[in-house]
Amino acid sequence: MKRAVVLLSGGLDSAVTLALARAEGFESYALSFRYGQRHAQELNAAGLVAQSLGAVEHRIAAIDLRLFGGSALTAEIEVPKNRDAGEMTTGIPITYVPARNTIFLSYALAWAEVLEASDIFLGVNAVDYSGYPDCRPEFIHVFEQLANLATRAGVEGSRFRVHTPLISLTKGQIIRRGLELGVNFSLTHSCYDPAADGRACGACDSCQLRLKGFREAGLEDPIGYAG
Amino acid sequence: MKRAVVLLSGGLDSAVTLALARAEGFESYALSFRYGQRHAQELNAAGLVAQSLGAVEHRIAAIDLRLFGGSALTAEIEVPKNRDAGEMTTGIPITYVPARNTIFLSYALAWAEVLEASDIFLGVNAVDYSGYPDCRPEFIHVFEQLANLATRAGVEGSRFRVHTPLISLTKGQIIRRGLELGVNFSLTHSCYDPAADGRACGACDSCQLRLKGFREAGLEDPIGYAG
Repeated sequence: MKRAVVLLSGGLDSAVTLALARAEGFESYALSFRYGQRHAQELNAAGLVAQSLGAVEHRIAAIDLRLFGGSALTAEIEVPKNRDAGEMTTGIPITYVPARNTIFLSYALAWAEVLEASDIFLGVNAVDYSGYPDCRPEFIHVFEQLANLATRAGVEGSRFRVHTPLISLTKGQIIRRGLELGVNFSLTHSCYDPAADGRACGACDSCQLRLKGFREAGLEDPIGYAG
Repeated sequence: MKRAVVLLSGGLDSAVTLALARAEGFESYALSFRYGQRHAQELNAAGLVAQSLGAVEHRIAAIDLRLFGGSALTAEIEVPKNRDAGEMTTGIPITYVPARNTIFLSYALAWAEVLEASDIFLGVNAVDYSGYPDCRPEFIHVFEQLANLATRAGVEGSRFRVHTPLISLTKGQIIRRGLELGVNFSLTHSCYDPAADGRACGACDSCQLRLKGFREAGLEDPIGYAG
């Protein structure tokens, strides 16, 4: 059985990505990061999702992106709330974390090489939320070239592939695909700024996109929202 | 004054690289990693070198490459000793750490973006020790392309440059250049497998190359060796 490293945040998109990797016949090695998020629910969610979708292993790499700051997700900068669709699709949001996907993919590459895997799955999306530069197809493409040059495996002939099966789907399509594959969305966590009791805020960009996706899919989001 | 992030291991090469960044007029931000090395002398050396060469800041990012293993430097695999020059220049050594320079450069990129710097210095060398795939010019070149695509700064027009001023120098040339620039080599640490008292072993590939470099430069290495 082919192995793949699947980047798993605990959010909706990466859960569907893990389900898709399984559906494509990969034995999945799920990788999450403790990266100085201001909240820990994501990692709890990632563990539950990994287990529910049959990942062979789930590892959490502790990395300290707070060392550099520069983002509302890693520094004391306020997470924007209740932005409209126009605001959300203009420019690069303050929740952008400098070089985050480059760092995440680098770790995935390290593990893939040790596992003798040449496939990495990443749940980025360039439709509903196009603001992050490191979610674009051209970034992914150059990372694949880099992976082949950077590694012993690449020198010896492996051709790394970064699968981004969600990259051109809308949130509604992602949710429908996940349902077909048996993803339990009640285990997932998307909020950038949850309440003290862990419930999603419903107002940050990530919550708004999630809720919009469930509306598009004609479904109700099974998680609870604060307020 | 232009800012640059300089990757600093505590070894001889990165010390000379830091001195060169200063000589080129950069304000240097030195970055080291606690990455599950089996020994800590490297990081002590990095701190002393950063201070002695006028780095504005020195930060240490804790990253756990032992999570994946796969190298004599991060797993319980023996460091090879007393290999001859032929053995050392054939194939990729067991001290290769999967995706290490990709991970290191990704962190440097994150910090550079936060600092609004577009220059990164890395002391890789492709002459005396050509075994590591992620020390080759083609790898560096693709990383620069990646950096421009991965970041907000790149989208907004920054052009990242990864400076590798040592890439085509011999160890002897690196040492002579460092002396000209006032590098205090007694502060540096190169050994992969030091004795319990911290002294270099003199027999691992890294020690052998260092000693060969001092011989080529017609100088005596100021550090002590065990045995």
